[in-house]
Amino acid sequence: MTETSSPDPSPPGGQQGSEEDSVAFEDLAYRAAVVDLLGAITYGEISAFERLTDDAKLAEELPDKLALAKMATVQFGHVEPLLERISTLGADPMEAMAPFVKPFDVFHAQTAPSDWLEGLIKAYVGDGLAADFYVEIAQYLDSGTRRLIVDSLADAGHADFVVDRVKRAIQEDHRVGGRLALWGRRLMGEALSQAQRVAAERDSLAALLAGGVDRPGMDLAALSRMFGRLTENHARRMAELGLDS
Amino acid sequence: MTETSSPDPSPPGGQQGSEEDSVAFEDLAYRAAVVDLLGAITYGEISAFERLTDDAKLAEELPDKLALAKMATVQFGHVEPLLERISTLGADPMEAMAPFVKPFDVFHAQTAPSDWLEGLIKAYVGDGLAADFYVEIAQYLDSGTRRLIVDSLADAGHADFVVDRVKRAIQEDHRVGGRLALWGRRLMGEALSQAQRVAAERDSLAALLAGGVDRPGMDLAALSRMFGRLTENHARRMAELGLDS
Repeated sequence: MTETSSPDPSPPGGQQGSEEDSVAFEDLAYRAAVVDLLGAITYGEISAFERLTDDAKLAEELPDKLALAKMATVQFGHVEPLLERISTLGADPMEAMAPFVKPFDVFHAQTAPSDWLEGLIKAYVGDGLAADFYVEIAQYLDSGTRRLIVDSLADAGHADFVVDRVKRAIQEDHRVGGRLALWGRRLMGEALSQAQRVAAERDSLAALLAGGVDRPGMDLAALSRMFGRLTENHARRMAELGLDS
Repeated sequence: MTETSSPDPSPPGGQQGSEEDSVAFEDLAYRAAVVDLLGAITYGEISAFERLTDDAKLAEELPDKLALAKMATVQFGHVEPLLERISTLGADPMEAMAPFVKPFDVFHAQTAPSDWLEGLIKAYVGDGLAADFYVEIAQYLDSGTRRLIVDSLADAGHADFVVDRVKRAIQEDHRVGGRLALWGRRLMGEALSQAQRVAAERDSLAALLAGGVDRPGMDLAALSRMFGRLTENHARRMAELGLDS
């Protein structure tokens, strides 16, 4: 999990302190966009919690079940601070999450894992991609929101666990590698297409990236560098699993 | 949730302090029995966690989903101290839980709820019965173990939540009451028959209840009073739901 591609070295929002945060929130469009983003992240965390508990249920070994259930509860611990932040911003957390329930649920229904290994990879690839994406976006936000987002996406030890179990399974039976590599590609494709659909429907995110009076936006070159980093990190994660991307 | 039938007023183990605890554990049969009991309770908690997350997944309303997921994580928080206690007693927690995996899993497979309300009732009735039973047994144990057990079984706010949702559902459609009352009876029957099977296979519990040099046992009269209290509390829980037992 070392050497992941990091966001551009000097993020435009990097110098903002908490005093400037309140200034940022005077821009109501900015505030609405942050609420939207936090709503998506929060429902994503709840959804990740459910996926981890599903994986825990599929575990054949009791220590594996326990390890996954524990990770799930750690992940769920991120939900409360996010809900509080949404409330602080004057929005209703349930309403903020509502637009993202269906896209996440559709994604999960379309990528239901057929076994324990597929479930592990889905959580690993999905959480990794989501975390990378949100951290990228967070660079364009006020520092308080940025810190909250980065903290919320901290890995709960899941990555090492998945890498270990998947590598072990491939060692035991080389044939599973091909099937799982295909699965990883499919997940990436479904995630991107679902994300695209959300972005098209909710223009708050687009507005956020376009910038504001006090916030520089993301130009096309920066956007394409971002997608480059996301793809690169995905490939690195697949390689860590011993799979071609 | 008031006025539940409590265990006999002066529990025989009630006067034991933590110094006497170490004396109790010099009896290796006692130590093994406690490990067995804690193994059962711990796997029961993990199993309850899984059931709550299943219920959370069935929730149609986002606040319900969130409330149940939160209860699940609170419940899971009891697991760690139990595992530690088993280790402190010189046993392997995974081995201690192993004999109870199948009975619990069989019980859950035989009583898979067909909808959200059945799931809620199952968790409420099942957790209540289990908690009553373990707390009864705990009265015959050293004080350290007793405290741990009682703390582990503290209700995570689940009871009030279930009572509220089930009552509301019956108000909206009176016909569901009959079906759910039947369901409650079936759950009680399955739980008792599964518990009986476990007790017959593991004689450590029987030995525990028979007492030791320094611990009085439970005679037949006390045993029958205990079953009376378990049944009474079950009936009270069903009545709180607005259901006949």
